[in-house]
Amino acid sequence: MNEIKVFAPATVSNVACGFDVMGFALHGVGDEITVKRTPEQGLQVVAIHGAENLPMEADKNVATIAAQAFLDSLDEKPTSGFSFEITKKVKAGSGLGSSGSSSVASVVAMNELFGKPYSKEELLLFAMAGEAAISGQPHADNVAPCLLGGFVLVRDYHPLDVIQLDYPDSLYCTVVHPQIEIKTSDSRKMLKQQISLRKAITQWGNVGGLVSGLAKGDYELISRSLKDVVAEPVRSMLIPLFHEAKQGAIDLGALGASISGSGPSIFALSSSKEIAESIGNHFTSLYKEASIDALIYVSQVNPKGAEVIS
Amino acid sequence: MNEIKVFAPATVSNVACGFDVMGFALHGVGDEITVKRTPEQGLQVVAIHGAENLPMEADKNVATIAAQAFLDSLDEKPTSGFSFEITKKVKAGSGLGSSGSSSVASVVAMNELFGKPYSKEELLLFAMAGEAAISGQPHADNVAPCLLGGFVLVRDYHPLDVIQLDYPDSLYCTVVHPQIEIKTSDSRKMLKQQISLRKAITQWGNVGGLVSGLAKGDYELISRSLKDVVAEPVRSMLIPLFHEAKQGAIDLGALGASISGSGPSIFALSSSKEIAESIGNHFTSLYKEASIDALIYVSQVNPKGAEVIS
Repeated sequence: MNEIKVFAPATVSNVACGFDVMGFALHGVGDEITVKRTPEQGLQVVAIHGAENLPMEADKNVATIAAQAFLDSLDEKPTSGFSFEITKKVKAGSGLGSSGSSSVASVVAMNELFGKPYSKEELLLFAMAGEAAISGQPHADNVAPCLLGGFVLVRDYHPLDVIQLDYPDSLYCTVVHPQIEIKTSDSRKMLKQQISLRKAITQWGNVGGLVSGLAKGDYELISRSLKDVVAEPVRSMLIPLFHEAKQGAIDLGALGASISGSGPSIFALSSSKEIAESIGNHFTSLYKEASIDALIYVSQVNPKGAEVIS
Repeated sequence: MNEIKVFAPATVSNVACGFDVMGFALHGVGDEITVKRTPEQGLQVVAIHGAENLPMEADKNVATIAAQAFLDSLDEKPTSGFSFEITKKVKAGSGLGSSGSSSVASVVAMNELFGKPYSKEELLLFAMAGEAAISGQPHADNVAPCLLGGFVLVRDYHPLDVIQLDYPDSLYCTVVHPQIEIKTSDSRKMLKQQISLRKAITQWGNVGGLVSGLAKGDYELISRSLKDVVAEPVRSMLIPLFHEAKQGAIDLGALGASISGSGPSIFALSSSKEIAESIGNHFTSLYKEASIDALIYVSQVNPKGAEVIS
């Protein structure tokens, strides 16, 4: 095999109470990467579509950093080089796991080209190497759902322990991505490194409630648990119309709404496509009225994660 | 009906990562209360068996405080008084929800005498009034599993939201109660009111893992998640032989072990009766060798909670 094209979905991470530990994958939006064997050795980014300001240098682009981590793990040196053509449908700094999607698409493509030496679970560590290069520390709450699909819990990093959570099939997500940029590193700085024990207990009570509600398909419980007392109160200040977007979604029947990743994207979860679409309309008109460009996505949770297109 | 006898089980609360939000009920150990209608008005504690130093005054004993909260909720004044005979099989200050068992037994008995005006869920608030009187603030992580049975999550208090978690039938618990007293209020003072965000994230990752593991019956996941980075490192200092007891239990195949409530009792969870009993033997010989009196309990999770005996 000399050429492969892979799709890796955008992801919602944190999911309100699940700060730094939970995430799920979306349908229809994400990154596509075509990797081709080349006669020249080494890794080369030949094109990036749909994004400006992303590095073309192989030692700076997350896709090629992740691919290099994959190659470094192999016993034998590759007999060819590889070119990467990247089509980004989610902008960097969206809060939708943009760098994670590129990292994942890249390692899935490399794995296919080499005859699948690794399971998806094993590929996680290589994809995380891409994430670590840009965020300073390895995170898995985007790359894990992107790679594996579904709703995941990253229970621990030492060693990495990713749990695929049970969740109801009819869970829908609406996302609005206002076209402003927040850097993950800036957004992390806003969070205090100490929190009150009282707030922490509230947060883990809600994590327990959310995991239980997802497993039981108990929408009322999911709804009561979709609260974030740690990051949302601080980070939402950076997001124009956050409270109007969230309150409107809840008024329309959302189970809950919060910040996706470190923002500025906002997600709402719903128990039906109809509700999810009406929330999409609400997001559209809210941001249109304020003359802020915004992209809207309505999607079920994507159970498959990254996949080979051709 | 003029007389009723109720059993309310002892409970393990906190359950490692689930500090202040999780608990489960035990079999065979707990409090029995006999409540009788009396011609004289008012509430009267007529006997307390199996415990010294507990107040006989109706406005100071948790059983009668909880019963009074029940009576205060009724539209009509009672036509009789009530006497309470309390048999405690779990000492106060054990970490096994002793006051919660008395509060629960009392309100379940009152509810029976009045023809069951309330559901078990509704009785929780009255039982919590007993708990609040002695701990200074209302807690439900003992009274909820004591009343409802099973494995519960107290997701929130405002309003009260108690979730009955799914868990595998073959889950066994071994408890050792070294006969030393730790007051809950003293033990709470040891905890810092601020914790690092990093530790909080670790804790809620484990809460998510434990709830998921219980729901799936995934013993490996339960085991990996039974960790407490918040209370155990501090509170275990007050418990003689804590680390030896815990490590021995794990060496014998326990899924995990930690402090029950605020101690000094230690619990271990196991996937079989055989393992749970061998851990019981380990606890027995460990404390015997150190000449510390200790009570040992081996029990499945009790799915029923408080129940009428006669």
